[in-house]
Amino acid sequence: MDALKQKIRDVPDFPKKGIIFKDITPLLADGKAFHTAIDQIAERFHDRHIDLVVGVEARGFIIAAALAYRLHVGTTLIRKPGKLPYKTHHTTYDLEYGADTLEIHQDAVLPGQRILMADDLLATGGTMTAAVDLITRLGGNVVGVTFLIELLALQGRERFGDREVFSLIQF
Amino acid sequence: MDALKQKIRDVPDFPKKGIIFKDITPLLADGKAFHTAIDQIAERFHDRHIDLVVGVEARGFIIAAALAYRLHVGTTLIRKPGKLPYKTHHTTYDLEYGADTLEIHQDAVLPGQRILMADDLLATGGTMTAAVDLITRLGGNVVGVTFLIELLALQGRERFGDREVFSLIQF
Repeated sequence: MDALKQKIRDVPDFPKKGIIFKDITPLLADGKAFHTAIDQIAERFHDRHIDLVVGVEARGFIIAAALAYRLHVGTTLIRKPGKLPYKTHHTTYDLEYGADTLEIHQDAVLPGQRILMADDLLATGGTMTAAVDLITRLGGNVVGVTFLIELLALQGRERFGDREVFSLIQF
Repeated sequence: MDALKQKIRDVPDFPKKGIIFKDITPLLADGKAFHTAIDQIAERFHDRHIDLVVGVEARGFIIAAALAYRLHVGTTLIRKPGKLPYKTHHTTYDLEYGADTLEIHQDAVLPGQRILMADDLLATGGTMTAAVDLITRLGGNVVGVTFLIELLALQGRERFGDREVFSLIQF
């Protein structure tokens, strides 16, 4: 895992002063590292009978699409407001300052489908808990939640209760 | 190809009145269709010695990530302004009304790398020609440009001159 961890770049003061951003682009750009990362996540869920991998805009799409391809299942998108063309459900959730909204197509998930949720980063978990809420409202069965990176100090995984949460790289 | 084409949904009046939007989400959500689509694009470029697949925000990430995984290479991101954490180059290009800007990390492409560009839709080709320009400025060798869907009537492919342009589904 250390070889993958070394592909994550610290970028200071992004998106604002005092924040050290974990930049995944060097990992994505390295074919071997990217392939290994996707395979290791897929391995973790390969016997869980996943029907669909849901990606959260925008970096989550990268993880979700490659995972879906690897697992031979489809992928669906949770997006920012106004981006999805068809009829949507939405959820609004609190941020540190203000609020944000996520949307999903009303027919994106069929009741009972076994869903793997994917995003690049688990920080406080606010976005992903809102995404899980959307899927659950559509009748989806969220079997697991996965991230490329987890920031352990923020304890985001505690918000998911008994759900399986798997992150590949921890800081 | 007809089986894939039937997975594209027409959504009238999106993003504005009078436009019929080609919605790819039913294709993405169908595991078999998604896998077939990626395999057919990969097949087209598998002997072109691709080093990196570049995806254009945001739906392009889905195509690029799955293609990169399939081709055993890395992927890199061209994004809207302010989204990329590290040092960037940018390009501004004209739209029907106004202009738009795309950014890429300065170290996203190494000189001489053989690049496959990916997005979901070829319409007028404005976004993708700007993206190709960014890659070329970084010294990348754009070997091909690929799309899930092409709107033939808009003749976008003419903007790419002799470059190889491959779309999987044509309308």
